[in-house]
Amino acid sequence: MADRAGQRRIPEATVARLPIYSRALLETAEAGVGTISSERLAALAGVNAAKVRKDLSYLGSYGTRGVGYEVDHLVHEISRELGLTQDWPVVIVGIGNLGHALANYRGFGARGFRVAALVDADPTKLERKVAGLRVEGLDALADVVAQRDVSIGIIATPASAAQEVADLLVEAGVRSILNFAPAVVSVPEGVSLRKVDLAIELQILSFYQSHPPDRLVDESTETVREAQG
Amino acid sequence: MADRAGQRRIPEATVARLPIYSRALLETAEAGVGTISSERLAALAGVNAAKVRKDLSYLGSYGTRGVGYEVDHLVHEISRELGLTQDWPVVIVGIGNLGHALANYRGFGARGFRVAALVDADPTKLERKVAGLRVEGLDALADVVAQRDVSIGIIATPASAAQEVADLLVEAGVRSILNFAPAVVSVPEGVSLRKVDLAIELQILSFYQSHPPDRLVDESTETVREAQG
Repeated sequence: MADRAGQRRIPEATVARLPIYSRALLETAEAGVGTISSERLAALAGVNAAKVRKDLSYLGSYGTRGVGYEVDHLVHEISRELGLTQDWPVVIVGIGNLGHALANYRGFGARGFRVAALVDADPTKLERKVAGLRVEGLDALADVVAQRDVSIGIIATPASAAQEVADLLVEAGVRSILNFAPAVVSVPEGVSLRKVDLAIELQILSFYQSHPPDRLVDESTETVREAQG
Repeated sequence: MADRAGQRRIPEATVARLPIYSRALLETAEAGVGTISSERLAALAGVNAAKVRKDLSYLGSYGTRGVGYEVDHLVHEISRELGLTQDWPVVIVGIGNLGHALANYRGFGARGFRVAALVDADPTKLERKVAGLRVEGLDALADVVAQRDVSIGIIATPASAAQEVADLLVEAGVRSILNFAPAVVSVPEGVSLRKVDLAIELQILSFYQSHPPDRLVDESTETVREAQG
């Protein structure tokens, strides 16, 4: 089955859920559990079981009736589908507090996102070592990207610098950009851009704190947990 | 219509999209645009137009055929639904690089998530001022929560301290917790817990970088953008 997964087409919403399944499965594996039902995986990921089964069918994974999915195998299938079996060297631009935190974030390297370079426009930062790497100047960006085969750029600058940094990353040949700066950034066609907004989750929490549980319902294809509790 | 919105029941998946609509609408308003079509809002939010119309119908907002939605009005409706018209004082626990970055993050205060207190277990940090606030000891947490009416706790500690901090927050009466630590944390029923995983977006980027655009398709209810480009 697995070798046919390459021919399946995967909806974007499914792609966005794969990392969430992956995390839930890794936690399950850490707990020493070898198989998992679609219901259990659904509960961990906050969707319904039918959606889990549909999503995983795009990968050619169907589980076994009454047994479920083999956890290790599914982790591997999802990792392969997400491209995590290869190395994605990352450059972080903007080494303020957020850049520092990202450079030290354990969750990146563990998933193949090796931080290969740190870049900052501030000349006073160039001597510093952060997470074992020397901070380099913005003028070194193109060389750094080329020499270290950087495939993803993370923007952790103030809002005012974000577009300029995005332009420089694109010019240097980076085709995937993750923007943490609170600014709208545009990139040419063919470049993937995603934005992280740290306040989104707070807004979801405030919804649940301001609404009683009985406002939440099951919709045809979307399971709703009882008040997140 | 607006006063009937209070009786509608809202699916969790819709709740999770409301902050994304809100951000897109605020950017539209900043650009001086007064009305927006469901198609345009859908494109900005990365879903399809039918989903936008369905989601907004839960709020009692239906737009006007051929005109669309009034941007300011919709921002207000969504803010009210998300509970953002009231103040949600936040305590950040763990004032390392990430805690620093979060304390200074402009996007929180702007949405009503005022950082009311900073707490850290390290006694050497107690004298510091970060983002205009003095760092306080972990033993002051219960008092801080009670006196400043803190409603949301953010965990920005190392993984090893996350569960202890979650327990202390719950004990202090906090009912909403946002966990940035790379650790599984459990909370009693009635407490909302959300986890931010900074590597999720990187995994989505790596998918798009490792797959050609023609693998992405429209599913019945989920629009898929061409390779995120």
